[in-house]
Amino acid sequence: MKVMLLENDWGPKNIRAAERPEPEPGPHDVVIAMEAVSINPRDLIMSKGGYGRMGGTLPLVLLCDGAGRIAATGDEVRHLKPGDLVCPTYSRTWLFGTASASTHKGAHGGPLDGTLQEKMLVPADAVVKAPAHMSAEQAATLPCAAVTAWNALVEQGGIKAGDTVLLQGTGGVSLFALQIARMQGAGTIITSSSDAKLERARDMGADHTINYRDVPDWHKQALEHTGGKGVDHVVEVGGSGTLEKSIAAVRQSGTISVIGVLSGNAGELNLGRIVTRNVRLQGVTVGSREMLENMVRAMELHRIEPTIDEQRFEFEDVGRALMSLPEGRHFGKIVGLVG
Amino acid sequence: MKVMLLENDWGPKNIRAAERPEPEPGPHDVVIAMEAVSINPRDLIMSKGGYGRMGGTLPLVLLCDGAGRIAATGDEVRHLKPGDLVCPTYSRTWLFGTASASTHKGAHGGPLDGTLQEKMLVPADAVVKAPAHMSAEQAATLPCAAVTAWNALVEQGGIKAGDTVLLQGTGGVSLFALQIARMQGAGTIITSSSDAKLERARDMGADHTINYRDVPDWHKQALEHTGGKGVDHVVEVGGSGTLEKSIAAVRQSGTISVIGVLSGNAGELNLGRIVTRNVRLQGVTVGSREMLENMVRAMELHRIEPTIDEQRFEFEDVGRALMSLPEGRHFGKIVGLVG
Amino acid sequence: MKVMLLENDWGPKNIRAAERPEPEPGPHDVVIAMEAVSINPRDLIMSKGGYGRMGGTLPLVLLCDGAGRIAATGDEVRHLKPGDLVCPTYSRTWLFGTASASTHKGAHGGPLDGTLQEKMLVPADAVVKAPAHMSAEQAATLPCAAVTAWNALVEQGGIKAGDTVLLQGTGGVSLFALQIARMQGAGTIITSSSDAKLERARDMGADHTINYRDVPDWHKQALEHTGGKGVDHVVEVGGSGTLEKSIAAVRQSGTISVIGVLSGNAGELNLGRIVTRNVRLQGVTVGSREMLENMVRAMELHRIEPTIDEQRFEFEDVGRALMSLPEGRHFGKIVGLVG
Amino acid sequence: MKVMLLENDWGPKNIRAAERPEPEPGPHDVVIAMEAVSINPRDLIMSKGGYGRMGGTLPLVLLCDGAGRIAATGDEVRHLKPGDLVCPTYSRTWLFGTASASTHKGAHGGPLDGTLQEKMLVPADAVVKAPAHMSAEQAATLPCAAVTAWNALVEQGGIKAGDTVLLQGTGGVSLFALQIARMQGAGTIITSSSDAKLERARDMGADHTINYRDVPDWHKQALEHTGGKGVDHVVEVGGSGTLEKSIAAVRQSGTISVIGVLSGNAGELNLGRIVTRNVRLQGVTVGSREMLENMVRAMELHRIEPTIDEQRFEFEDVGRALMSLPEGRHFGKIVGLVG
Repeated sequence: MKVMLLENDWGPKNIRAAERPEPEPGPHDVVIAMEAVSINPRDLIMSKGGYGRMGGTLPLVLLCDGAGRIAATGDEVRHLKPGDLVCPTYSRTWLFGTASASTHKGAHGGPLDGTLQEKMLVPADAVVKAPAHMSAEQAATLPCAAVTAWNALVEQGGIKAGDTVLLQGTGGVSLFALQIARMQGAGTIITSSSDAKLERARDMGADHTINYRDVPDWHKQALEHTGGKGVDHVVEVGGSGTLEKSIAAVRQSGTISVIGVLSGNAGELNLGRIVTRNVRLQGVTVGSREMLENMVRAMELHRIEPTIDEQRFEFEDVGRALMSLPEGRHFGKIVGLVG
Repeated sequence: MKVMLLENDWGPKNIRAAERPEPEPGPHDVVIAMEAVSINPRDLIMSKGGYGRMGGTLPLVLLCDGAGRIAATGDEVRHLKPGDLVCPTYSRTWLFGTASASTHKGAHGGPLDGTLQEKMLVPADAVVKAPAHMSAEQAATLPCAAVTAWNALVEQGGIKAGDTVLLQGTGGVSLFALQIARMQGAGTIITSSSDAKLERARDMGADHTINYRDVPDWHKQALEHTGGKGVDHVVEVGGSGTLEKSIAAVRQSGTISVIGVLSGNAGELNLGRIVTRNVRLQGVTVGSREMLENMVRAMELHRIEPTIDEQRFEFEDVGRALMSLPEGRHFGKIVGLVG
Repeated sequence: MKVMLLENDWGPKNIRAAERPEPEPGPHDVVIAMEAVSINPRDLIMSKGGYGRMGGTLPLVLLCDGAGRIAATGDEVRHLKPGDLVCPTYSRTWLFGTASASTHKGAHGGPLDGTLQEKMLVPADAVVKAPAHMSAEQAATLPCAAVTAWNALVEQGGIKAGDTVLLQGTGGVSLFALQIARMQGAGTIITSSSDAKLERARDMGADHTINYRDVPDWHKQALEHTGGKGVDHVVEVGGSGTLEKSIAAVRQSGTISVIGVLSGNAGELNLGRIVTRNVRLQGVTVGSREMLENMVRAMELHRIEPTIDEQRFEFEDVGRALMSLPEGRHFGKIVGLVG
Repeated sequence: MKVMLLENDWGPKNIRAAERPEPEPGPHDVVIAMEAVSINPRDLIMSKGGYGRMGGTLPLVLLCDGAGRIAATGDEVRHLKPGDLVCPTYSRTWLFGTASASTHKGAHGGPLDGTLQEKMLVPADAVVKAPAHMSAEQAATLPCAAVTAWNALVEQGGIKAGDTVLLQGTGGVSLFALQIARMQGAGTIITSSSDAKLERARDMGADHTINYRDVPDWHKQALEHTGGKGVDHVVEVGGSGTLEKSIAAVRQSGTISVIGVLSGNAGELNLGRIVTRNVRLQGVTVGSREMLENMVRAMELHRIEPTIDEQRFEFEDVGRALMSLPEGRHFGKIVGLVG
């Protein structure tokens, strides 16, 4: 079978097609015939070796997001059968509870081999059935970005109907966060530098949109939208470039979910305002299998359609797709086809 | 001004019209010109002296639910002005945090004088602005039944999108719980003995309906609707008559909010199943001002319309309205007009 | 090797010695050479078939509590080595998070074979190292009763320094709860019908003791000890015989952990007071491996010595030991020796 | 009566003795005859106008910490009587629940007049009885630093027996945090640049001490003390100078309570590690009256003695005392005498 392999050196250019023997399931395993994958900023960082020891060693099969159909099941597997459309979980061992050294031992796509293979061997425990109404392409977007948004807002965030959630940009996590905030009854404010993207966000139900090119002090507008009180929750994906404004935009005792570090790893942080306003900064590292299952159930009830960019990349073009991510021309998840 | 007064003896028959001097606000008070009230099972129990010492002493102005317009404000009151449509809170002193001897010292309608008066004197702290889109009749239904449902599901219950909530009957708390569960993204199962009422519940968005006359073992159907797992949350209003089935219908580690005791005060309880299935029974005693404010904000965002029965009772007919409550011919809240 | 087997019919009298082949560990398993076991009311109920289908089928090796030394490890097991003193967990699959159909699939001692065997085969995931300062006899008391108390007070209860915890009787759960409440900084009130046992409880640090023979209205004394406010937490082991008084003794918004049903399965319950005082009744079904690990860590730091009754029963006398449990002549856990 | 007043310009040098008329209590107020006060870094920042608009306007009576005896009570005050030893709360309006624009409207010592006056007029709601075993000097240390530590570890932190808490330095918050962590059953690691101070911390029960002059990479030692896992909770008082190391020292899903910003307001922050390790940074802004009451109850049960530096400053020397704070020669709280 074919896999895309990062082999001789780090760097997305070094991902090459390779052949591997078809996997055989152990008694508690399943083999998934992958149909679609999707890419995340994490994958680009990973491909560059950016997570150091946490990213594992070469050769490595990248990507944590994907979906396919069960091709074979081990003798002890009862709850899955050939043909089921499924997603592998992000972390292979974090099934329940909180992230810890005992639960979260390794994620697909680094340090463990990921979804970029025609047949993926996974413990049956690390597999979740896709929402009944979704295609493989749609389901392929769920394990990483969507669970991150779900964990941030619902599991750790506990947002409630009537809360106001501030979202930054129209990347994968932010658009899932928009859909999840709405499922949970919250109002939303979303920022972007593109009026066209903001219009699409409004079509998806965003209550307020702010073009941060036109309104660099977007935190002030967020305060106005909340009667001066501040938003209840910020999903912070920009990192140090925007954190200062997020802190200014959040209400007393509010929460900022820190998801990503797009604009760089380190930044100046005004700690004083965090203290005097009792703000919580909560790091979010995707989530457990149970969170993915909870989210799948919610998405089925609400028949949520993931937002997917029109382009599709071919299996062998994954390196180019990863390198194009920072250009930000897409709207929603970028999906690739396997095989 | 006119008040309806429970004066010489307990019992709804003894509520009579009386005259009292118009109240003058102290520096931190407001006077509300009441326009509408609504009734709850609590008020009927209260009118009979059923809460003992907790219900206060005669003479007593009954009812905790109502809405009206600010008629006068004390010198120190800044956030309210004449003409604002407002509701008094259920508890005069429980503004924030959890119910305790320090926070929840007394409710309107017993032991403190309630809403059955043309002009109601209240500390400005114990008043909340009605949702902007609601009439006085609609807002008059919020402080008790709606906040009870909100507290049960959202504040103490923490339900999330995709959860399944089981509701019993189509009384005030249950119909608000239906609307609130939906705002929060949960699926709902509702029971009633009337197919006509179940159809109205379906029109309001209930996902599953069960006529418990036809299906006395409704807990089994609830299990089926959840793939055998059990519902995440039950809003238990029936008390001992239904609790056993609620315990059978709820999932492991699920929650049963115990709201009311319509079918009697005491009952047989199978403790064993609570233990082995890690079930939580959570008493719910309405809620704080902050919870009312949170709910108002959510209802404004979602433009929720309270379900109000067609009938209106006149101010002086409140005793008869209370006595008719157990007949259960209404659908939604019963509202009365003041003055 | 020798096992004690409940074979032909339910009932503690039917437990007999039997021979079974020595187990071989699979790659992720360990074999424990059991040294000591301890008994719980659960085991007596189980031996009588009292849990129905949840208790599994005959033949069955009873008991969930025990400790021994690692005798062999599977090839993939890294964190345990021969000679380590360990306890099997109560539930074989509930490692993290909350009890659910996905996590808590079966406990040792019914439906799964338990600790009454010279060599016990267990997945390495379902094993926890004993506290460094404990003997096998001491560690054998931890998985069920101690974790139940820990889960009730710490994990689900969240008690804090200065809280008051009410404990009923001097059984295994109650005495562990006394030690755990004290570790967590809470004050304690304990009841018993024996002045001698109450004196021993005082020696263990109980702040207040009540002989419920002399003071049948012990809830009133509990109220007095808390200045009329009520206790923060009750560990309810008596079931319906005492629950009414526990409800009277607990503060507004307080918690009653429902642990056991010693005095019968069903009882009259005054729901009204649960509602008006916002009381939480929380069923507690032992706990996860992570909870056992958390407790072990706490017991190591505080060098907690489990309270063990002086008697020791021999491996083959386990049936008689179980039948003597209801007599209640012991103080602390009853421990048996294996082999 | 005499007050110490910051009058013409900001700066601790400008605090001068002044005369004001003795206050008369309104119906819901009390007058406290202050006996002792204590100082916090907050007071020094406040005296310099460092909190901007949040610090209020001149003239201002500084200091939030103090204790004294009730001298007079308003007609409606029932729970306090002349002679009671009491503390004013930190925030006058934050009685229950979480910090918000509705609850936390202003603190004593800025923007509201503080404890530096012979007779202090306070609403009876904003007063708490001192622990029965404490002197006025001891009780004067509680409202700000002790409640901050209590809120960080117990109310927001939810630490439990067996957890490991890392404390920085031997300032007021850190030493209270040491006592509170121990009450709650946690182990402690404490850092300082002074071996003498570390010895005193060990005398107070610290489990591990680290001299950060000798061991600049103290986070590595903290990791070793926890078997490589990381500490459960850090009480971060140093701000940006130490935060990077705190993040390295905390376990996955652990909490860093951000209390103070001693080494400057802003700093470089490595967000990546917060994300990948699911770390929570929780700002802590003192706490509510209920938290102070909870802490008083715990301190009474455990007979906690606040750590007070030997020196006492005179009422009129408060400016000098504030200016000497950064020298750090004290151990524990610095207390001044009123009158």
